[in-house]
Amino acid sequence: MTSLYFEEAEVGKLRTAGPYLVSTNEIIEFAQKYDPQPFHINEEAAARSVFAGLTASGAHTFAILISLLFKIQPSLRVLAGLAWDELRLPIAVRPGDELDLEVAVLEKRESKSNSDRGIVRNQMHLRNQKREIVLQCINTVLVARRPDVKSST
Amino acid sequence: MTSLYFEEAEVGKLRTAGPYLVSTNEIIEFAQKYDPQPFHINEEAAARSVFAGLTASGAHTFAILISLLFKIQPSLRVLAGLAWDELRLPIAVRPGDELDLEVAVLEKRESKSNSDRGIVRNQMHLRNQKREIVLQCINTVLVARRPDVKSST
Repeated sequence: MTSLYFEEAEVGKLRTAGPYLVSTNEIIEFAQKYDPQPFHINEEAAARSVFAGLTASGAHTFAILISLLFKIQPSLRVLAGLAWDELRLPIAVRPGDELDLEVAVLEKRESKSNSDRGIVRNQMHLRNQKREIVLQCINTVLVARRPDVKSST
Repeated sequence: MTSLYFEEAEVGKLRTAGPYLVSTNEIIEFAQKYDPQPFHINEEAAARSVFAGLTASGAHTFAILISLLFKIQPSLRVLAGLAWDELRLPIAVRPGDELDLEVAVLEKRESKSNSDRGIVRNQMHLRNQKREIVLQCINTVLVARRPDVKSST
């Protein structure tokens, strides 16, 4: 398990996790609790919908992204999340899909107010087994800077 | 149950849903599946963390927003979701919190390519019982326009 300080986060370098296999049961269970629309919870109603089959709630797809983010290696030494932007769900997630997460540092800058941290913007792509993007977004986080050995002595 | 066409969506008018009572069990169950960090799944570890107690995963807070969005009245006749932006989670959700969702149309414009729909940007605020914002975001959706009776005869 490696986790990177701000200095080690390299712009453009990809980090990945997955696959995450999505089951019919998981789609229905999640949606029954948080997004009980017919095309998320009932296979027959879903077959008749514009989706022509069961699809996962967008909230579920986002939860799967978080679960893969937890597993990504190497991780960043995140102090706090700041924002999620430009989140799009262009293709629906369906039963049997195998999802992969790809994260790349889009840009980074030192904090002006705190010398122990930096701000990193990560571009995230969650893709299915056909390499179609099912979720994309930009996540901005505070990342710890490497402690300065000289100044701490 | 009322649902509004594009023409009826009024900029600035508030629509609300809630409260949603968040339990310890629900926080732990969700996080065990999607975000198993100590401060989301273990009360003792959470007590020793910077949060000084159990907090809900951000993915869980987003799922609760979706569940309240499903209940909001009147709803919009949404054809498709386009994007989520400026999503922030400034205050953590904790066991016992009662969450309310408030949605306001921020701006709306007719689609240039399709005369049967319009684009609506909704500002959303999810608040706890102390009126603190736990999640805020902007959601852009396609909304059906009222069918023109004259042109359909």
